[in-house]
Order: sequence, then structure tokens, then C-alpha cells
Amino acid sequence: MKVYFAGSIRGGRADADLYHRIIEYIKKTDKVLTEHVGDLSLQESGTDKEIYAQDTAWLREADLLVAECTNPSLGVGYELAYAEKNAVPCHVFYDRTRANLSGMITGDPYFIIHPYEREEEIYAALEEILVR
Amino acid sequence: MKVYFAGSIRGGRADADLYHRIIEYIKKTDKVLTEHVGDLSLQESGTDKEIYAQDTAWLREADLLVAECTNPSLGVGYELAYAEKNAVPCHVFYDRTRANLSGMITGDPYFIIHPYEREEEIYAALEEILVR
Repeated sequence: MKVYFAGSIRGGRADADLYHRIIEYIKKTDKVLTEHVGDLSLQESGTDKEIYAQDTAWLREADLLVAECTNPSLGVGYELAYAEKNAVPCHVFYDRTRANLSGMITGDPYFIIHPYEREEEIYAALEEILVR
Repeated sequence: MKVYFAGSIRGGRADADLYHRIIEYIKKTDKVLTEHVGDLSLQESGTDKEIYAQDTAWLREADLLVAECTNPSLGVGYELAYAEKNAVPCHVFYDRTRANLSGMITGDPYFIIHPYEREEEIYAALEEILVR
């Protein structure tokens, strides 16, 4: 499957190493379109118009979106709505000990929400989601 | 005009007093559908499903969306995409000395972006936007 992984970039990189580990996990069996989100020394390239054009093209192409939403991010919120509009299934993860997810996401019946307390729970859920 | 004001709630209330001042400014001449976003002692009420249903109804009803995006927010990102889908004109404000806005927002030609350095610039722009 082609997976769009969504995580905070300009909203803050506090969880970049977590994104990296999730991406590596997905990559064991599937393709991650947005591997750069887990790049610990990410240097964005291209204009913002180019970034937008590439990311929305990937969103339309994706079979699945996996978002790690503990760190608030304007871009991830936009990506979730864009994926919903294009009927891409969306799995939203967040650490319930660190974040209180937006009501616009938890209240939208379209999204499949996975609150977790320990990182291992993410991988256990991905095992199910990725249908290995 | 009916204005949907978007600002961070669960993503962090560091700018709640700024939201309050912007809402008060708009209210001088226009209606703000989401006045609670500027409530300094906001206690959310209702279930997340009810919040989502109400906010998306207001988004479809709004003549205009005004977002203050300095504090990253998943919900505001979702609201921007939802407003775009419904062809609601969107004005996005952020303090360029404090934030680097998501490329998904600045790279999307649909949004009208207003970077500012001093709060007065917000009100000067609103004077134009609200067509008094």
C-alpha cells in the first residue's frame, strides 16, 4: 500500500524521532510517500507552492493516511481534511498523556482515532491496519 | 457579514487574549459565529460530535473565515480545508516573528495570507476585508 504519513514539520519537530520510527515500521512492508517527515535533519526544499502541489498529489494517490497528531500542526489538520475529501482512509494516532486532540478531528466520524499511552500500541495497531 | 473566526483551542491557549481582541474588533460591525474562541475562561461544552456538527454548520454558513494561525492547531488546519471545500473566502493571519506557517497553507493559492509583525496590522487589514 502507498501510505501518506502526516506529522508536524513547521509546527514543531519535538516528535520527529517518533515519526522516524513509525515510518521505518511501515516501510518494512509498505511504501511511505512522505518519508522526509521522519528525516531528523530535514531541510525543506522547493517553494511552498511546490510543497503544496507535491503533498496534495501524494494525498490523492495514497491508499491510506497515518497521522501522528500529538504535536499540534496546522498542516496535518489541512491534510486530514484533504484526505477525507478524497475518501482516503485516515488513521489518527496521539499520545493521550501528552495531548488533547481537537474536537474537529475526534468529533468527525470519518476519522479512525487511536489514542495511545505507550509507543508499542502504535505498532500493534499498524499490524492490523496494514493487513499483512 | 457572518464571520467564522478560527483560533487554537486544544492546541494551546497562549494567544487567547489576541483572539479575543480580534473578535471584539470584528464585532464592531459584523457577526462572529465563533465568539467562544476568544473566551478567556473557555469551558468547552457538548460532546466532540456536537462540536464538530456545530462548527461545520457554521463554516458552511459563513461569508468569511478569519484565522489567527501563530499557534499551531490541528483544528484550525482542518477548518481552513473545510472552508476551502465550501468556497468560503479565507484570510489567514500570523505573527511572522513567532511562527513559520505550514507550506500546506502558504503554498495553497486559495488562501489569502497576512503575515504581520505588529498587532495593529491585523486591524488595518480587517478594515479592508470587512468592506465598511
